[in-house]
Parts: sequence; C-alpha cells; structure tokens
Amino acid sequence: MEGEGLSYKASGVDYDKLDWFKRYCQKKAYETKKNLARSGFAEPEKVRGESAYLVETESAYWAHVEEGLGTKNIVADQMLALTGVSYYAAIGVDTVAAIVNDLITSGALPVVVAMHAAVGDAAWFTEETRARDLAEGFARGCELAGAVWGGGETPALKGLVHDAGVVLAGSAMGRVEPKSRRIVGDIGAGDKIVCLHSSGIHTNGLTLCRKIAERLPNGLLTELEDGRSFGESLLDPSVIYAKFIAACQRRDATPKYAIHMTGHGWRKLMRADGDFVYEIDKTPPLKPIFRFILDRAGVDMKEAYGTFNMGVGFAVIVSADMADDCARLAQGEGYEAYVAGTVRAGNKSVVLRDRDIVFEEASLNIKS
Amino acid sequence: MEGEGLSYKASGVDYDKLDWFKRYCQKKAYETKKNLARSGFAEPEKVRGESAYLVETESAYWAHVEEGLGTKNIVADQMLALTGVSYYAAIGVDTVAAIVNDLITSGALPVVVAMHAAVGDAAWFTEETRARDLAEGFARGCELAGAVWGGGETPALKGLVHDAGVVLAGSAMGRVEPKSRRIVGDIGAGDKIVCLHSSGIHTNGLTLCRKIAERLPNGLLTELEDGRSFGESLLDPSVIYAKFIAACQRRDATPKYAIHMTGHGWRKLMRADGDFVYEIDKTPPLKPIFRFILDRAGVDMKEAYGTFNMGVGFAVIVSADMADDCARLAQGEGYEAYVAGTVRAGNKSVVLRDRDIVFEEASLNIKS
Repeated sequence: MEGEGLSYKASGVDYDKLDWFKRYCQKKAYETKKNLARSGFAEPEKVRGESAYLVETESAYWAHVEEGLGTKNIVADQMLALTGVSYYAAIGVDTVAAIVNDLITSGALPVVVAMHAAVGDAAWFTEETRARDLAEGFARGCELAGAVWGGGETPALKGLVHDAGVVLAGSAMGRVEPKSRRIVGDIGAGDKIVCLHSSGIHTNGLTLCRKIAERLPNGLLTELEDGRSFGESLLDPSVIYAKFIAACQRRDATPKYAIHMTGHGWRKLMRADGDFVYEIDKTPPLKPIFRFILDRAGVDMKEAYGTFNMGVGFAVIVSADMADDCARLAQGEGYEAYVAGTVRAGNKSVVLRDRDIVFEEASLNIKS
Repeated sequence: MEGEGLSYKASGVDYDKLDWFKRYCQKKAYETKKNLARSGFAEPEKVRGESAYLVETESAYWAHVEEGLGTKNIVADQMLALTGVSYYAAIGVDTVAAIVNDLITSGALPVVVAMHAAVGDAAWFTEETRARDLAEGFARGCELAGAVWGGGETPALKGLVHDAGVVLAGSAMGRVEPKSRRIVGDIGAGDKIVCLHSSGIHTNGLTLCRKIAERLPNGLLTELEDGRSFGESLLDPSVIYAKFIAACQRRDATPKYAIHMTGHGWRKLMRADGDFVYEIDKTPPLKPIFRFILDRAGVDMKEAYGTFNMGVGFAVIVSADMADDCARLAQGEGYEAYVAGTVRAGNKSVVLRDRDIVFEEASLNIKS
C-alpha cells in the first residue's frame, strides 16, 4: 500500500490525554504508602513507576500487577467473522502474557493469575467455541507462566462494553524470594543488553494494525510473503518469558534490569533511571509481519521501532561477563536470545546502530 | 410507578448465559493447581469458589482478588449530565469496596490494591473534575481499606468500551497472618448471624435501578421521601468493611464465615457449604432508597431481598457466645451492626422471618 502513512496517534490512541491522569493517580497512590506500615510492611525504594508493585516482607517481596490485553481480541473477532476460525486460545495466552511479562520484570515469579473478562452482552458466551478457547488459552498461559489460575470475574456490562465485545484483563501475584533476587535497576556503563525474540506483534500496536487492515483491499486476509494472512499473523500468541527469569533465578544470575517490550517499542529500553545510552548493534531479522507493516502501511522505520516490538519481546541488562551465559540460559529454556548491545554512559537514549535510529529521552516520557 | 414490575433478568443481565462459562473457567483453573507445587506453595482446601483465592506459605496465606465495579458509574455519568455534579469520588470508593469486601471474606487484610480504568476514548479524561474525583475516591477507598494503592492500568480501548464510558475494576493482594485467622466456613447449628449495615445500594442491582429510572417521568431526579434524588441516593459510596475484620483479628475473634452481600442479595447468606437454614429474625429498617424501589418500581419484596442488599452489606457467622461481642466490635469501628439471626440444621435455605420470605438452595446456584 502506498500513500499517506499512519501514525499511532492518528490511529486513535492519544496518550497525551491520558498522561496527566496517570501522573495524578501516581501522586494519589503514593500518598497511600503510609498504610503499608499499619500492616507491618514496607514499600521498597524505586518501586513506583515500575511495571510491578512490590511489598517487602521479612523474607521476600510479594509482587502485584494489574494489566489488560488491549484491543487485540477485536482482530480475533474480525478473523472469526471472516474465516470461521476462533483464535481465542491465542488471545487467552496473550492476556496472561500481558500480565505476567510485566510481573517478572521485578524478579518475581508468578504464583497466581486471575482473569477479568467483561462482556457487553452475556450472549458473547453463546459462541461456545470462542469462549471455551479463551478459557483454555488462559489456562495454557498460566501453565507457561508456571502459575495457578486462581479466580476471576466475568461481568456483563451493557452500556459500557460494546455488545459484541469483551474487555480482557487480569492480575497476578508473584514472589521474589530470597530478596536478593529482586531486579533493582543497578545498571552501569559496560553492561550488556540481552534480547529475547518475540513471536510476532504480541499485544502492542494492534489499533494501528487494524487501521492498516482497513486500508487494504483484502483487509486482514491480505497475504504476507510467507503465505499466511495478515490477521492470522497478528494473532500469533505472545511469548511468556517467565521460564527465562526462573532459570536466571535458579542460577543466581538475576539480571540488573528487565524490560517487557510493549508500548513505545524499543524506546522502552531506556526505561530505567540513570543517564545511559542503550546501544544496540544488531536488531533481529524482521519477520514477515513486521516487513509487511513497513512495506505496505507507510509506517517508517523509526516509528515502527518506536511502536512495535520488531522482533524482541523482552530484554534484560546484565553485567558484561554474564551476557553470553544469560543468552544461553534463555536458549536452554527454548527462547531465541542473543547479546544485542551495550550500555554506555551518555545522555539517555536508545541507539539502533544497524538501523541508524536514535530515540532521545524525550520520546519516552512516562513510566507506566 | 404502577404497572408491570421489572425483573433482574428482564433488565438485561442474563446470568444463565454466563454460568456455563464460569463453570468451565473454574474447571480449567483448577487444572492449573499443580503449578503451585513448583513454586513451593500449596492451595488450601475449600478455597475454590470462594470470593478470594488463597496461597498458603509457611507462616501465612496470601489472598488475591480480581473484581469489577459493574455498571454503577453509568448512573454517575447520567447524574453528571443532569446536574453538573461529579459523583466519581464515590465511584472510586465503590470500586475499592467491590474488591476489598470480597478479599476480607477470607480473613485476609488488604495490603495492596490496584485500579483498572479502561476507557473507550482517551477524551474521557478531559473531563478533569470527574477523573480527578475518581483518583481521589480510589485513594480514599484504599485508606478505608488500610491498603496501599500500588499500581494500575488505564488503557483506551476504542471499539471495545463505549466512547463515553469507563470500565472500572481492579485487584487486591492481602494476607492472613497467622494462618489461624483464615475464615474457613466451619459453621454449625446454633451459630449466630451478625449483620453490618450498608450505606445504600452499594454496587449491586444498578442495571435494574437504571431501568427503573427510565420508566419514571423525572428519571434519576425523582425525589425520594427524604428529599434526595433517586440518582444521588444510588450513588452513596459503599461501606468498606476491612476495619471490622481487622478488629476481629486483633481480638482473636475471627468469624467462622463472612459474606459480602452483593449479587443475589440475601440469598448469598447460604453461600457456605453445608446444609443449614440461615434464619433471620429481623431485617434492618428500610432506607428510603429501598422503599422507593419497592413502592415505585413494582419490584416485589422477595425479588428485592434476592437482588439488593436491602440494608446489609456484610454478614458474618460466629459462635453464639461471640455474637454480641462481634456486633459491639463492629460498632466500635463505626459500623452499624446487630445480631440478626441464627444458623439451624435443615435443608439449605435463607428464611427472613419478619418478611415471610424463604429462599431455597436452588435459588443460589453459583459460587462466584
């Protein structure tokens, strides 16, 4: 597709309008910190603004994450209508992935996951294959996370959720034990960046992808170079990286920092505090889904790396002497992983050398 | 209002269509129980189907709840449009109440609460008073719960959530420590039922109330006998009962069972396992909001008690010799509470003697 490119903001997600509210919530939330003392707990330093909240006990940290899937399941609904195939097992895995991949950035291993599935109309559940797939996928995600599916909630919210829709979200509780396994963010110049491959688009940038599909004559059924459809490719289930963090913990090789590559794409690499340049020597080869987005949708390379995961779903920062071992540890658990780059002193930024892309600090203005 | 009465199902919430999915999820969730062993934990007996999920550690249980507000905030939006007044501070409290009042039924005290606010359009947050009230109310709810507001998520889900709407939900993590303070459900004939008053409608039955409003010439602005409007009365913030359970724990007076009176109204009193008759001698005097629903909406008395909290937001079952103390303990924390009735042997049912109402077991067919 030629013509005008699509930007993420133009695709309907305007983060600016949200950001003041996030900051206001963070302020109000911080003011409730004193309540922890009453329950005999402490809030660890540097936990606010990270992807998981931690409570410190004598022997462990307990971690808590509340997360949502976003709008990926709209694509699954569209594909169901177009092809009769339910992709909701993948959607179930994706929902767990969104939650758990955030949780493990703290060094916590997932213990319990809960599902929240809010429909607009209870008739959603009369499409039984789709609903059953969702439950099975969610259970599969819990398996991959090594967690138990504890409870959940399935309200019908007519007037809030569209009649044909379901809002998928949930939460997880995890534990860092012993406390030395907390991932704190003690990054230094010379550290290495180890990247773990994604399976595809995961759960970020779907709104933009749906806009892309709307502008294609064959929409989601447009074929990629590998013969699979755009829609099917978008719905490859996310990778869950819990087994990698568990393996690191078992070897006492806790990373210095961990990043779940979601919103803001590769800009997220500079999420940690401190002035560092995150210099990537080599980005992974682009899967057909990403080449398609670049070639056919008029999304330019920099915006693509600033929006999508572009092949890397999770990254950790480790000391230089641990980097090769860390990548091998990931490979041993079945993940594709490689030492991708180096942390250097300098003004906070992300540099993708093989792509000639630089993201300055100002391009990542929220911690959420 | 005269004429045809409104039933909950006719008001648009058809639980039958949902129930198979809940059961299927429970089955799939139960199959993941084995994953707990890998993390060195155990799933306590009798936890499935209760309002909070528990994980057992050496010295404590950690509790996890995922819950949603339902559709109450639609009423707040309607009142904002009608009167210019934002009731979202109350809505924030309600959201925490929905989560925390479930959590404490396990005997856990809330430690961390997270907010999930999913809008259809980020423009929702440009109505700043409403958004700020929501954050302040949520923080206030956390205060009342004695918990810290940990994190949260505020996605914009165009195409899933209505443009003008927000889906409010969240999760909490809590702890039962020492383990003897777990509320297990070891009910026996002769036990007493202690009821704690609600502030009004709380978060259940709102869909029906909106239908009632639609049929009134003045809608939500219809005056109740106390001169307040129907809408304003509906939006009284829920009571959070955490301080009551905390007080019980401090006195080593853990209740045998605790019930958050939400969906299914007073039918929920028979939530525990075992064949018992829950015999209530006296229901509380009806506040204007409940009398209004009965008098003007054609909801009959039995349906009202089977749907709404009708003045009782939380109930506990305690041994007979503890009952008066338990009620006094609640009063000491500022709750209105009284010894309402007795547990008797017999076919599972709830009997409201002063109302001549009997709910048979079949009328409460889910544990959720």
